Amino acid sequence: MELIREAMHASVSDPVASSMNFLNEIAGRFPDAISLAAGRPYEGFYQTTDISRYLANYASYLDAQGVDPRRALMQYGRTNGQIHGLIARMLAGDEGIDVPPESIGVTAGCQEAMVIVLRGICAGSDDVLLAASPCYVGITGAARLLGVEVVPVPSDNGFDPESVARVAAAVRSAGKNPRALYLVPDFSNPRGDCLDVPTRHRLLEVARESRLLILEDDPYGLFGLDDRARPRLKALDTNRDVIYLGSFAKSCFPGARVGFFVADQEVVDAAGRRTLLADELSAIKSMLTVNTSPISQAVVGGMLLEADCSLRALNASKVEFYRSNLLALLDSLATHMPPSVTWNTPAGGFFAVVKVPVLADIALLEKSAAAYGVLWTPMSFFYPEGGGEHAIRLASSYLSAAEIDEGVRRLAALLSDAAA
Amino acid sequence: MELIREAMHASVSDPVASSMNFLNEIAGRFPDAISLAAGRPYEGFYQTTDISRYLANYASYLDAQGVDPRRALMQYGRTNGQIHGLIARMLAGDEGIDVPPESIGVTAGCQEAMVIVLRGICAGSDDVLLAASPCYVGITGAARLLGVEVVPVPSDNGFDPESVARVAAAVRSAGKNPRALYLVPDFSNPRGDCLDVPTRHRLLEVARESRLLILEDDPYGLFGLDDRARPRLKALDTNRDVIYLGSFAKSCFPGARVGFFVADQEVVDAAGRRTLLADELSAIKSMLTVNTSPISQAVVGGMLLEADCSLRALNASKVEFYRSNLLALLDSLATHMPPSVTWNTPAGGFFAVVKVPVLADIALLEKSAAAYGVLWTPMSFFYPEGGGEHAIRLASSYLSAAEIDEGVRRLAALLSDAAA
Repeated sequence: MELIREAMHASVSDPVASSMNFLNEIAGRFPDAISLAAGRPYEGFYQTTDISRYLANYASYLDAQGVDPRRALMQYGRTNGQIHGLIARMLAGDEGIDVPPESIGVTAGCQEAMVIVLRGICAGSDDVLLAASPCYVGITGAARLLGVEVVPVPSDNGFDPESVARVAAAVRSAGKNPRALYLVPDFSNPRGDCLDVPTRHRLLEVARESRLLILEDDPYGLFGLDDRARPRLKALDTNRDVIYLGSFAKSCFPGARVGFFVADQEVVDAAGRRTLLADELSAIKSMLTVNTSPISQAVVGGMLLEADCSLRALNASKVEFYRSNLLALLDSLATHMPPSVTWNTPAGGFFAVVKVPVLADIALLEKSAAAYGVLWTPMSFFYPEGGGEHAIRLASSYLSAAEIDEGVRRLAALLSDAAA
Repeated sequence: MELIREAMHASVSDPVASSMNFLNEIAGRFPDAISLAAGRPYEGFYQTTDISRYLANYASYLDAQGVDPRRALMQYGRTNGQIHGLIARMLAGDEGIDVPPESIGVTAGCQEAMVIVLRGICAGSDDVLLAASPCYVGITGAARLLGVEVVPVPSDNGFDPESVARVAAAVRSAGKNPRALYLVPDFSNPRGDCLDVPTRHRLLEVARESRLLILEDDPYGLFGLDDRARPRLKALDTNRDVIYLGSFAKSCFPGARVGFFVADQEVVDAAGRRTLLADELSAIKSMLTVNTSPISQAVVGGMLLEADCSLRALNASKVEFYRSNLLALLDSLATHMPPSVTWNTPAGGFFAVVKVPVLADIALLEKSAAAYGVLWTPMSFFYPEGGGEHAIRLASSYLSAAEIDEGVRRLAALLSDAAA
């Protein structure tokens, strides 16, 4: 049967997915180009021997608890996972987030957590998600997959809680239901921004006043440029307005494909019983992937057990590396870029955003790869409703400082030539 | 924030999910009851040492191919997976299904494959899925998650391709678009039915005439009661009308959480280029779980490498076990059941269906667990639009023959007392 794309699957005409595919295609065609596009973690930290050691740690832990490792690792398992207790200890110790283990659902990467939570809280056709914009493409992809409308909260000049209230009110005036706000408070992708503490408190007030849940996505929170304490929104969340989304892709490794949600909201079920939102979300998880691979969970669990569930302790050397790499990126920009190019000052994370005096589109990217040997990501990918045409995202996570410097030098040459 | 279930997430009021939760709850409350409900595989085949051996096999295979195992196992990876070549060899050798490896997408269990395929082929609001009924709850769950209507093709008295044509025509008359038919041709869950070969050929004709794709789900195909050759629909599919859904939950183990789809249909994309449906489905997969854990894939890949990719060779002893268990179940029914109780004759698989002279509802199940110490599944769970109120599904996969016999004896006592 020949299928015509338009008729068969609307999601595939997703512009971001198409663009990302094109980005991958360009990367494939120019394998020698230096990639300042890839936000993947540095592989120098990875050793395959870690996998078997983590698995062995976890098997010993099961033994000590009197659990049959054969059943725990190889059979079907609890929908919301089996390392929720270890994650609860991690959140309490590292972040001061005190939640019952039963409020945690372990997912097949954080992307699945986004899909599950979004499906759970935006089930009505008028339910709308607000998102600080520019915005991580994973959440807009999840929303498109589920047919959920995303309304941007413009945050180009920093995130302002008052604009959340305004956008929520405007959505309500238009007859729709703003259900939640998605944001990455700590070292966002793509901007590397970080909310200061008074802004966090004010945002929680606004959420309560505007009857919004907050989806706090935290993949980069460990990787600040300084050691200042920045309480997570979930740690300040006395009213249970925050659903926390966690990832182990950067703090353990992406191949484990383990993420989680924390949903400790009280839900009144059809029978009038009080339960946790996490329990209700498990029904969605069961229809999506049944349960997260216990082998993947065992890898992450075995890692956590090596440092009494402190992800911060386990990541000390990664924190140093990503810090010095981000500083190297900023240094290289200062060294090589012409005066017409400016960039932001991220507070941490894997990315910086560069404003350029030319149109930063796919055509420029192709020229950049072919003639200058450097890849980057157009910022237009990160705006749900347009924007970022004259900006690019650079990643500092995957390369050495020397490679970053050479990549930025090449990019500077492209931009100088293109502007001339 | 207190959330009211009805307002927040319609999916959670899914009757099947609620019923399944209730089933699990009953099982939890009566842990000593014999479970003829659980269709999970027998754990006697599992050894945790298999996991490390499979991983080592796969790492050697990567080495031999000159692939860095650190990157392959621990980094982000190709959206549609990395063991597609091994799966293509398996399908060709075991089943005579010859498809390009690029048409295969490796998923986080077969449940995710169902969600991805359904999202891909039923994107319009008038797109409808037909399903042979009674029907596996996983597909109705996936459809509910995505808001896709499921129209049953009544198959209580055996599956008839002509009724597929009739139902498709009726759906079209009602102004909707029947996109595909879902069925399990080999040893279905819940009935253990098997299509004969002429029926398979006729079904493929009907699909072509009715412009329907077929979603062929094949979790139990290895486990027939005899060795008769039964070509998969996909092996007979000269017109690329079949999307094949594969699972390793029974043939490897459920904890790997690895399944796959085969989608070799040609698709014309927005730019007029011909591509494979599998490539287009990868855009959906990327929004759902990014990619399937390479560690899980390595477990399955390492298993396949132990027998030159023959799943049939690897499963010889499991085939024997499940066969003798299903025969034991049928023997026990003949031994213990009163004359008012009848059952079907499955051709293979994990299940049989028993007609009972009483209402087989949740109340009876609770009584059965509490007073008779035996669990089973109401057949009403498996009907998208009602049915099965006087039937129950029994599973023969998880227990020993002696346990099955004792379970059936207890069930016979319940049914005799209830009918009296």
